[in-house]
Amino acid sequence: MANYQKLTPRSEDYSKWYNELVVKADLAEQSAVRGCMVIKPYGYAIWERIQSDLDQRFKSKGVQNAYFPLLIPKSFFSREAEHVEGFAKECAVVTHHRLMNDPNGKGVVVDPSAKLEEEMIIRPTSETIIWSTYKNWISSYRDLPILCNQWCNVMRWEMRTRLFLRTAEFLWQEGHTAHATSEEAEDFARQMLDVYADFTRKVMALPVVRGVKSPNERFAGALNTYCIEAMMQDGKALQAGTSHFLGQNFAKSFDVQYLSKENKYEYVWATSWGVSTRLMGALIMTHSDDNGLVLPPALAPIQVVIVPIFKKAEDLAPIMEKLRPIADTLQKFGIRVKVDTRDQLTPGYKFADYELKGIPVRIAMGARDLENGTVEVARRDTLTKETLPLEGIVEHIQALLDAIQANCYEKALSYRIDNTRECDSYEEFKEEIKKGGFLLCHWDGTPETEEKIKAETKATIRCIPMEGEIPGHDVTTPGKCMVTGKPSKGRVVFAIAY
Amino acid sequence: MANYQKLTPRSEDYSKWYNELVVKADLAEQSAVRGCMVIKPYGYAIWERIQSDLDQRFKSKGVQNAYFPLLIPKSFFSREAEHVEGFAKECAVVTHHRLMNDPNGKGVVVDPSAKLEEEMIIRPTSETIIWSTYKNWISSYRDLPILCNQWCNVMRWEMRTRLFLRTAEFLWQEGHTAHATSEEAEDFARQMLDVYADFTRKVMALPVVRGVKSPNERFAGALNTYCIEAMMQDGKALQAGTSHFLGQNFAKSFDVQYLSKENKYEYVWATSWGVSTRLMGALIMTHSDDNGLVLPPALAPIQVVIVPIFKKAEDLAPIMEKLRPIADTLQKFGIRVKVDTRDQLTPGYKFADYELKGIPVRIAMGARDLENGTVEVARRDTLTKETLPLEGIVEHIQALLDAIQANCYEKALSYRIDNTRECDSYEEFKEEIKKGGFLLCHWDGTPETEEKIKAETKATIRCIPMEGEIPGHDVTTPGKCMVTGKPSKGRVVFAIAY
Repeated sequence: MANYQKLTPRSEDYSKWYNELVVKADLAEQSAVRGCMVIKPYGYAIWERIQSDLDQRFKSKGVQNAYFPLLIPKSFFSREAEHVEGFAKECAVVTHHRLMNDPNGKGVVVDPSAKLEEEMIIRPTSETIIWSTYKNWISSYRDLPILCNQWCNVMRWEMRTRLFLRTAEFLWQEGHTAHATSEEAEDFARQMLDVYADFTRKVMALPVVRGVKSPNERFAGALNTYCIEAMMQDGKALQAGTSHFLGQNFAKSFDVQYLSKENKYEYVWATSWGVSTRLMGALIMTHSDDNGLVLPPALAPIQVVIVPIFKKAEDLAPIMEKLRPIADTLQKFGIRVKVDTRDQLTPGYKFADYELKGIPVRIAMGARDLENGTVEVARRDTLTKETLPLEGIVEHIQALLDAIQANCYEKALSYRIDNTRECDSYEEFKEEIKKGGFLLCHWDGTPETEEKIKAETKATIRCIPMEGEIPGHDVTTPGKCMVTGKPSKGRVVFAIAY
Repeated sequence: MANYQKLTPRSEDYSKWYNELVVKADLAEQSAVRGCMVIKPYGYAIWERIQSDLDQRFKSKGVQNAYFPLLIPKSFFSREAEHVEGFAKECAVVTHHRLMNDPNGKGVVVDPSAKLEEEMIIRPTSETIIWSTYKNWISSYRDLPILCNQWCNVMRWEMRTRLFLRTAEFLWQEGHTAHATSEEAEDFARQMLDVYADFTRKVMALPVVRGVKSPNERFAGALNTYCIEAMMQDGKALQAGTSHFLGQNFAKSFDVQYLSKENKYEYVWATSWGVSTRLMGALIMTHSDDNGLVLPPALAPIQVVIVPIFKKAEDLAPIMEKLRPIADTLQKFGIRVKVDTRDQLTPGYKFADYELKGIPVRIAMGARDLENGTVEVARRDTLTKETLPLEGIVEHIQALLDAIQANCYEKALSYRIDNTRECDSYEEFKEEIKKGGFLLCHWDGTPETEEKIKAETKATIRCIPMEGEIPGHDVTTPGKCMVTGKPSKGRVVFAIAY
């Protein structure tokens, strides 16, 4: 049974609050395998909603799902020079294919005779194996574009892990497309960024900023990385999704050419784009409070919980006579409802549990409500309650769910706006960055300046924001770099990031 | 562009026909990684339909999805003695967690300093890691039952692989449940068998036989293995799904006890059950023919293809004026329709392609049809065509899809019945088994006899069939073992299996 000792308040220790919340709300837990998590049923149900909504959006863009091997031959990584630097280092290496009984005793040991000729890497990302496959799929312009996505697990041997945010194994989707022209590929990478932005804003209620990564923060092997950046409640930034224009790098590494309409051989242009179970971390850290998870209704596995309040068993029936039709009607309108008639748990226990789990709306009815023909409606996001007549209750709940969805977004957006400010002096920057939030600063565009700032303050350039993404601030007018005084094309977003 | 050289006929070389079909119909292909396949978008779209239908069925039984780690510590396998014999031997072993630049030249090598303290195995199945997790989830009878499933990849280092049927990596679902009593667990294992049987029969149109495995063929660590067995067109058997009653074996290995209502500590009872991408192999080998794939409409990503036949561009519009409303209406009724107006391909080429891909219904309209107010309707399963008036065409197509679904099942069932026969003499058996099919024989119930038969004929006991599963044959009346003459409780199903 869950433990309802209160969570550590966010103000006391944000990181501890997060870790406790993830476990107590039954979202995920550490497994027996270092750095790998178990995603528990309640957490997975939220991930399934993320998956199915995104999957439809991908398919509406013409993307098809496929599946590529988990293991990648070691030599594949050496083919793309930047890629190997970025990915092939901290990874799980398969060296043998057999165990045998330990000749010296109990248990099993690795069979030394079953050493692989070439070691295999558990995929940290699949560009290399996919482009080695695309080589066989592409010969003419008629074979293009190829728009594939896969939902799968990947592994990066992280030293310091945190549930959902940074784990050795995580779940994600990775889209990999092949195009005849540079323009078409870059346009597609941009389109997928917009898919991510629209999804995270409307469904996850995350007020993300769309932008472009600076060269230092680019994906290893990309010419351009588009991203959406979110701000957590502690003022830190979290990269919520990326879409890469890969140019012809992978096509050249794996020799993927096509015969153009003009009868000439050309290298193919590529994109890749992904979001992961990290989004679960962004969801939690954007909306939740000291009482537990807060879920935007669009992602809540249970949107409305209905709790009859009764002492004696015979009191339940007359209350349920009123509540059951409400549940049925809500369900008919496609709302996900749970009715909790368990008698071994107190209402107080149930309320705390549903708060912890972030159920957006709770409807309760006791003896007095029954007399008065009312119910108590509580909303999770504001922790407010009101007593309402039974008449019109279904319409009220429908509107309330929409209002909660909108409020989750608005609240997070206000927080982001309140914690986004301009800064023109590097001395001031060093102090301001400690307070968290996004700092909009002029930067001379060089990796050296970016590295100096990172080394001295831990802040990184989260993105070069796209026009209109930072309301109330002019980020496009040129200025002077806060560190070097050299010319800057506009303000970029600095933050300490997860 | 696909290659429309004809497939090798089944009668000539069934195995070659299968391999060619899988590749040419764009279902899957070998990857650069030994034994691992790439599931191509068309094949994956069929697998997605299998997944989503089964997933709903699981959820209607109260099962929730979750996710457990890919890697399993080596020592976990040693805990369940039979399990380690059955699974831990041929597997992918992770021994290191880092690569480094080759000090002697180009490329990367395994960093010898990054050796893991304990080797990890890529999961061949997840009982061990899941039961080590359940230990923390279960303390009282109130925590039971736990009904979890995961959709994931698994790996078994197979020496001889075939696309979908036997691959080193494959996709599957594995359900793992925990119960308070033996009865409840065994009943749940039976229920899941029925879910599989109903799904494979109604959706995949596979006339499976439900039964119980003999001890030799049981899952490693199970007390009882229930299975569904299908017969392929070459007379070989294919195990299409299994559901295991695991008793308390894993609970004891991982020390998972619960406090009962009677306040006593008891070991928990377990089941596990799974189907995999192997079902794709069963689907292909049950229904397809020398022209290519045949898909039951319930699983077809495209159920109806509409092909206008025109020579000049200006001829297309008047034909589409008639065809477009048919497509729209079919879609409105939830039928998956594709309209192919491409002008660079001949109708003959398109017809052959859609036949190869197994699209259940093809509607074509040319100039003469336009004049007559008719269309040509071709069905894939029988390869028959008829010319029909436009009036009532939508209702006709709806009924036709149902008829094709039923016919796929009936045809496969007839084949199975025609190739199922009793055999009472072991001498006769040795000849008969070469002809393929299911042989219903008396067996004395001993592993020794089963092993002798397997060694001498390659035939195995596919299952001890449940009552009523083999219409027209009495399998429950006792008799005498065909090999030893000892008493037999009834007839069991022998076959050569994939």
